[in-house]
Amino acid sequence: VSGPLRRDGVWWGWGDDRPRPSLSEGATAMLAERIGTTEPAARVELGEIRLPPAAPLPDTVIAAVGGTARVSTEPEDRIRHAAGSSYPDLIRLRNGMLESAPDAVLAPDDAGAVAAVLEACSRERVAVVPFGGGTSVVGGVDPIRGELERLVSLDLSGLRSVAVDRRSLTARLGPGLRGPEAEAVLAAAGMTLGHFPQSFCFATIGGFAATRSAGQASSGYGRFDDLVTAVEMQTPRGELATLETPHTAAGPSLRELVVGSEGTLGVITDVTVRVRPRPQRRRYEAWFAPGFEAGADALRTLAQEGALPDVLRLSDREETRIALALSGLAGMRRSALERYLALRRRSEGSMIVAGWEGGPEAVARRREVSAALLRRSGAIPLGRGAGESWERARFDGPYLRDTLLDRGLLVETLETSHTWSRLEELYEAVGAALRRSMEAAGTPGVVMCHVSHVYRDGASLYFTFFCARRPGDEIEQWRAVKSAACDAITSAGGTITHHHAVGRDHAAWMPSEIGEVGIEALRAVKERLDPVGVMNPGKLLPGAI
Amino acid sequence: VSGPLRRDGVWWGWGDDRPRPSLSEGATAMLAERIGTTEPAARVELGEIRLPPAAPLPDTVIAAVGGTARVSTEPEDRIRHAAGSSYPDLIRLRNGMLESAPDAVLAPDDAGAVAAVLEACSRERVAVVPFGGGTSVVGGVDPIRGELERLVSLDLSGLRSVAVDRRSLTARLGPGLRGPEAEAVLAAAGMTLGHFPQSFCFATIGGFAATRSAGQASSGYGRFDDLVTAVEMQTPRGELATLETPHTAAGPSLRELVVGSEGTLGVITDVTVRVRPRPQRRRYEAWFAPGFEAGADALRTLAQEGALPDVLRLSDREETRIALALSGLAGMRRSALERYLALRRRSEGSMIVAGWEGGPEAVARRREVSAALLRRSGAIPLGRGAGESWERARFDGPYLRDTLLDRGLLVETLETSHTWSRLEELYEAVGAALRRSMEAAGTPGVVMCHVSHVYRDGASLYFTFFCARRPGDEIEQWRAVKSAACDAITSAGGTITHHHAVGRDHAAWMPSEIGEVGIEALRAVKERLDPVGVMNPGKLLPGAI
Repeated sequence: VSGPLRRDGVWWGWGDDRPRPSLSEGATAMLAERIGTTEPAARVELGEIRLPPAAPLPDTVIAAVGGTARVSTEPEDRIRHAAGSSYPDLIRLRNGMLESAPDAVLAPDDAGAVAAVLEACSRERVAVVPFGGGTSVVGGVDPIRGELERLVSLDLSGLRSVAVDRRSLTARLGPGLRGPEAEAVLAAAGMTLGHFPQSFCFATIGGFAATRSAGQASSGYGRFDDLVTAVEMQTPRGELATLETPHTAAGPSLRELVVGSEGTLGVITDVTVRVRPRPQRRRYEAWFAPGFEAGADALRTLAQEGALPDVLRLSDREETRIALALSGLAGMRRSALERYLALRRRSEGSMIVAGWEGGPEAVARRREVSAALLRRSGAIPLGRGAGESWERARFDGPYLRDTLLDRGLLVETLETSHTWSRLEELYEAVGAALRRSMEAAGTPGVVMCHVSHVYRDGASLYFTFFCARRPGDEIEQWRAVKSAACDAITSAGGTITHHHAVGRDHAAWMPSEIGEVGIEALRAVKERLDPVGVMNPGKLLPGAI
Repeated sequence: VSGPLRRDGVWWGWGDDRPRPSLSEGATAMLAERIGTTEPAARVELGEIRLPPAAPLPDTVIAAVGGTARVSTEPEDRIRHAAGSSYPDLIRLRNGMLESAPDAVLAPDDAGAVAAVLEACSRERVAVVPFGGGTSVVGGVDPIRGELERLVSLDLSGLRSVAVDRRSLTARLGPGLRGPEAEAVLAAAGMTLGHFPQSFCFATIGGFAATRSAGQASSGYGRFDDLVTAVEMQTPRGELATLETPHTAAGPSLRELVVGSEGTLGVITDVTVRVRPRPQRRRYEAWFAPGFEAGADALRTLAQEGALPDVLRLSDREETRIALALSGLAGMRRSALERYLALRRRSEGSMIVAGWEGGPEAVARRREVSAALLRRSGAIPLGRGAGESWERARFDGPYLRDTLLDRGLLVETLETSHTWSRLEELYEAVGAALRRSMEAAGTPGVVMCHVSHVYRDGASLYFTFFCARRPGDEIEQWRAVKSAACDAITSAGGTITHHHAVGRDHAAWMPSEIGEVGIEALRAVKERLDPVGVMNPGKLLPGAI
């Protein structure tokens, strides 16, 4: 296939082929103490992965995408489009036990080809999985056929158009652009999108829109769905495009119906977003709150007083302790840091990272206002070294996950949000459910949490947990823990996902999230725009549709 | 009927029964010069209005709302629920020529009664028009039966629950609360919603949500759809409720499907909104820009530099000139003002109103930043008197409309928005279409415009136009001008409505706005949640559905 395909990264884990980080002796000892010893887990070789034979594609589908030059049935392409980056995805890849793979990968190079493919696939009853960066952590690109017999992965990396409107500070971007590619073209115009999720280096503009991504600087720049002003989507029924006006009162928002639709209604082929001038200065700092609850109160105050930094995160005690154990803090030896914190009575504290971006004067002024409120809440400053250390490593978490997977751990993250009034209840409930379910399975684990997206009315909670993996039973082991957490979230009235999206993994909880009438509303749209049900089967809504 | 019904205002015009403002000699002369002389137009008496006989309601519908005590078939109640506040609505009322009226007015007192009514009406094929404040200016509450033989107006003024969450700064509000009622209960908790559209005194929370209202302080507090965090809606198919979390990535936004649905999918029975501490200080000022284009550039700079006042408006030259002719500016005699402006070479200028709200220090600091940018753009300050004069009269525009209607004028407003790049093109196109169509009808008119909602990527345009009315042909005369403007808007890529909503008057332009696939998506939801089509027929979507 002549189009650009996903060939520049590893197929069994995250990102590029750099060496995975190794664990210090201290970290290894901590793991042994907390979860017991684990056996290193081997990965299969690419050639060992058994694939089901590829069903031949109808000629009309091949013609629609632009001919055989834009179609690949090579095993490597099929494998690389057979999974995203969720824990179950990676386990299946590493074990060489794919449930399924696309029969072919199609690489259209414009919206017209996408439209033609959807029409042909709808007519021929071929399932279509839109594929951007392949970074979904919720099974969003898993090749589920539903009731259909054939399935193609639609690789959108060829859709890379860019048009910047400097006067309106907007940019119309093709869905196939990865985060750094979009930032590079915007930088040439002196602009930034300011959207930096952990998946930034590999995820795409189309994926950000389809999943309601949220970046680490969402407090300042806004979540991706806040940044989108217009979308264009190809559906089996035709094109749906919204106007590029700054706002409208013309009925229910179709833009907000397309954003978050996760490829189940159609393929997003253009996204118009608000951009900003590139910040002249960035200032990142770490602070230490007396505890998680006090830290959350500090974040709430910052939001409600209109004094939010652009980046704002708060780790709970467990995450703070483990982060310090793993790495200490840049510019401060661990023992010195511990003495400092003990002296200030913050040994049981929670770490805050805050970052301000913009012109030098604005950064200084805003930082002063935020810092005064942080101090008033009992937090003490740890300085810029620690903040900059966080900034440098901000996209590296998934590489560490590979290390832990190699060592035989189950390691997973999940996230939710709630109002300030009920955030602590949600925090306690989810943490307890995770610990209890890992314990009950005979694999006691570690649960840690941070707040990373802060609003006037509430905040997100991001949990990371790990325990020893049960070889041969990995998926069921994972499912039990994940289910316990999701049940706890919905019981506490939190959302099943704040920014990872629904995909395959959360679909069963959508009735709790939006109710049966909500489900019916989405099903009605789905059935009208995609009557055959070819678009990304098995995602977003429970059951086959 | 024992429930609260709409009895405290005039039936033939806006608001309460205060005397309408009279026109100065200068204003009268200006009107004569610009549009010719007009004949004063009499209004019929309430008793003279002929109503079609009320079709009897099924007992099950009466039982559903809570019995006959919650049902009225009195002519006055039927008349008061037979129209909103659009120009065609008022003309029909004043002429005593209602096309239609509800067969009855139902006054449920809770969400359960609303749900029961919708179920019964759906079973019995009775159309339901949700009715809040009756302030729609786009025919949103007109009693259109579609294919059904009976129609009720569902007066929601009995749904008045309030629950404030001080920690999360949110409030759950019943849809029947009028603007001042909601502000009063919030004020008791030290809070404000900060939503002040011109209809504020009479419009309701449910109406704000159903129509995507935008207030005069939207630059600071946000449009109403930005303020809503969760909604509950009763539909013929059951209840649709969204979670009260600060954000979610769980699929397409159902909140954004309910907001703006204008009663066509169901009845909004609860709205959760973000609130803020009441501002300690308000500072309003007027400024004078060298012209409309320079003024728009100043507004753009304020938005893009993150220095927006909470209130920000810019009148074009015509509106500025007419505002000065009608009233001068408070604290400054007209002749003195004109000398001042001539001296500063701003005679052909455009007036800006800017307002800052909050704590004293924040107001002073923010005002300083805004003022520096305004000065840099060539605007000169006119002081606080003029700004405060605007603030005092901010809700009075519709009373002046009654005066002009009494004098025999056609007077109407419409609004749109676009990106900064295309705002001027839109401004020219709509103004030209309005002037040309009034001229072509033999009734040359006046067109003026202001910007009242400012975003980083664009702004709204609000047009007011008037000409002599053609007695006996008022509706057709209006329709020709309105259609010309709407065609010009859609040709220029603007939105058919920035904050008045779609209702009956804009429904024909929805295909231009959202395309045929967009229409199909909304129809699909409508047909699923309201299979019989009882909910507010003839609104939002073109054609009977």
